[in-house]
Amino acid sequence: MIGEVISVGTEIILGSTLNTNTYYITQRLSEIGIDVLFHTSVVDDSNLLKDVINIGLNRADILIFTGGLGPTADDMTKEVVSETLGLELELDEDMECNIKRYFDKMNRTMSSNNTKQAYKPKGSEFLTNEMGTAPGIYIEWNGKILILLPGPPKEMKLMFDKYAIPLIKQDYTIKIKTISTIGIGESKLETILKDIIQGQENPTIATYAKEGRVDIKVVAKGNDETKVDELLNEIIEKIDERIHEHIYSYDDESIEEVVYKKLKANNMKIAFCESCTGGLISSRFTGIPGVSQVFDRGIVTYSNRSKVEELGVKKSTLDKYGAVSEQVAREMATGLLNKTGVDIILSTTGLAGPDGGTEGKPVGLVYIGIATNHGSFVIKLTLSGDRLSIQNKTTLKAFDELRKII
Amino acid sequence: MIGEVISVGTEIILGSTLNTNTYYITQRLSEIGIDVLFHTSVVDDSNLLKDVINIGLNRADILIFTGGLGPTADDMTKEVVSETLGLELELDEDMECNIKRYFDKMNRTMSSNNTKQAYKPKGSEFLTNEMGTAPGIYIEWNGKILILLPGPPKEMKLMFDKYAIPLIKQDYTIKIKTISTIGIGESKLETILKDIIQGQENPTIATYAKEGRVDIKVVAKGNDETKVDELLNEIIEKIDERIHEHIYSYDDESIEEVVYKKLKANNMKIAFCESCTGGLISSRFTGIPGVSQVFDRGIVTYSNRSKVEELGVKKSTLDKYGAVSEQVAREMATGLLNKTGVDIILSTTGLAGPDGGTEGKPVGLVYIGIATNHGSFVIKLTLSGDRLSIQNKTTLKAFDELRKII
Repeated sequence: MIGEVISVGTEIILGSTLNTNTYYITQRLSEIGIDVLFHTSVVDDSNLLKDVINIGLNRADILIFTGGLGPTADDMTKEVVSETLGLELELDEDMECNIKRYFDKMNRTMSSNNTKQAYKPKGSEFLTNEMGTAPGIYIEWNGKILILLPGPPKEMKLMFDKYAIPLIKQDYTIKIKTISTIGIGESKLETILKDIIQGQENPTIATYAKEGRVDIKVVAKGNDETKVDELLNEIIEKIDERIHEHIYSYDDESIEEVVYKKLKANNMKIAFCESCTGGLISSRFTGIPGVSQVFDRGIVTYSNRSKVEELGVKKSTLDKYGAVSEQVAREMATGLLNKTGVDIILSTTGLAGPDGGTEGKPVGLVYIGIATNHGSFVIKLTLSGDRLSIQNKTTLKAFDELRKII
Repeated sequence: MIGEVISVGTEIILGSTLNTNTYYITQRLSEIGIDVLFHTSVVDDSNLLKDVINIGLNRADILIFTGGLGPTADDMTKEVVSETLGLELELDEDMECNIKRYFDKMNRTMSSNNTKQAYKPKGSEFLTNEMGTAPGIYIEWNGKILILLPGPPKEMKLMFDKYAIPLIKQDYTIKIKTISTIGIGESKLETILKDIIQGQENPTIATYAKEGRVDIKVVAKGNDETKVDELLNEIIEKIDERIHEHIYSYDDESIEEVVYKKLKANNMKIAFCESCTGGLISSRFTGIPGVSQVFDRGIVTYSNRSKVEELGVKKSTLDKYGAVSEQVAREMATGLLNKTGVDIILSTTGLAGPDGGTEGKPVGLVYIGIATNHGSFVIKLTLSGDRLSIQNKTTLKAFDELRKII
């Protein structure tokens, strides 16, 4: 089956919105055996879009559209697809109620524009949007499949995975495992796993470099589910043997989730004190539902004064070694341990840049401190990249250390 | 003139190479007055590419190709373009010498594959590649322009700016302004601005919904730069008259940057105490370089105990009203004001969910407190969405309040 992904929107063409949807959809379709051969983007113009649809119907079996499902006059994907296929638009009263309920819940009035979202082409199915007002649409037409999804990536991804994929999935079983690694670069990983990756047609193995970490995606296919599971487990064991210490999840979890689960299982409480990460560690951690069971507090001690007042760092230590030092990282962590009495403390202090670096203490120099009742230790990092990248890498490394010692 | 950007390569379709070329080319073409209406990507397949070229010739005046000019068998853009246009490939002896010199300089032997790069379609011009072996190609054919560029972004960008742009340049100025708004939905905004948006061909006005905010992009074109500026300013004034209180930037800045600049200009210091946002406000704020000049500290008081210990919230207030209450939001802010003595404090407390909501206090209920030496106030929000979305909307709203009162 041949696929084409069609992005609708002038903002996509102009690049003011980065088009990440297309790659997400292509990857997910590849995983279920559909060959995506074309991507097309087109501005908001009904005549041009109509031609694009006809071209797509001519060369592909499945067309996935993103964008142009909102309430404004610019949003025309559904209308133009219906017209091109010769399908009438019908009001769906259930959907009208749903949208109305959504607005009631938000204490906002539903405008007549929003009613337009309750119409669907005759014979098509709505795909529920749990995160917004624009529902998706699934159409089977003359042996082709057309799926219309909203543009915002969060809404699109959830709908595509939860509602669209099951509708287009073929008869065989496809299982995907994502192994998440940290502390090893993509090319080194590929060298270590070279014979496993190259020898394999089923499962297939691919690496995806993310900032500061690499995912390994293993995809197994077959008619027999038990056999597929066996294939998958066999490869995962082989991979695990070679890079065990770098793997933090076999289930596509984030590293902070892994830390949260370990803390919870051990009935431990944690607190953070952050300087260079500026609250990013606390913020990532509190993105996890239920984290209040293990998280006591976080203190962003950005000024030297706050390091002294909040954490009991000695002024003499700051004067002698500077805020970015092993000593201050340690005093921050032990200070907060004494103050709170929780089981484990993590501290960060470093230079995220772009300014403030010196020869002895360049931008990218970061110390991570960890303190527990059994003692404390400090890790020194030398990181590259811009400010946000240094903050992000420090955060990943911090959670990685926590994962290892809990 | 209508433009189309065509990216050739299976690695582009699969997303293993991020396609930044397309946006670069589109932006540069827009600046010289060419309307790019389409982007197409296609895998390495000569038949599919031939169809893509014919479709492009049918709907655009200028086609820019990237990728597929290298020495391998997979690289076929030049060959397929020549065949589709019915142009013979001719050996260019000067180019053959150039490529040979390049290899000599790098101390590498030129393979027969590389000779293939010295051929060009009859009547076309080579575009010099100063950074690699694959030259670009400029073709005028039946009133159309076709430009072939190599895939590596560094090579492509240099060649495009230095050699391709001068060949296609028109006499045009284009200017773009991004107005960022908050606190008003996209459809309401479009209703308010309807007559301005619809009446306009130059400048054009378009709205782009982001999570919790909406951008308005105004694009003006013309032969005379002063006139273009006038057109732009005239429209911006009209928009400003109607929605002034919702506009936080005319220069595509983030809202936290706007708050940072206002604090700095007023020589003020700020501190945050966060519960439901879990450090996100501090984290966003410390993403700005130089923020230490205005930011003292942030405290993430996730547990009730930490609210009492760190901020001096009264246990009786927590018992009587609960952690998510107007009273606690106020005591958090005034408590940290007393502790730090900085100029302004912002606090958050709320239910980010997904669990923990009750009938009286549903998920999405959030209080934002602000305290200064002149007094304190609390805002109540009722937000929808998932946990991260509620945290994100609270953060935007918090910065919006700060922007208004500083």
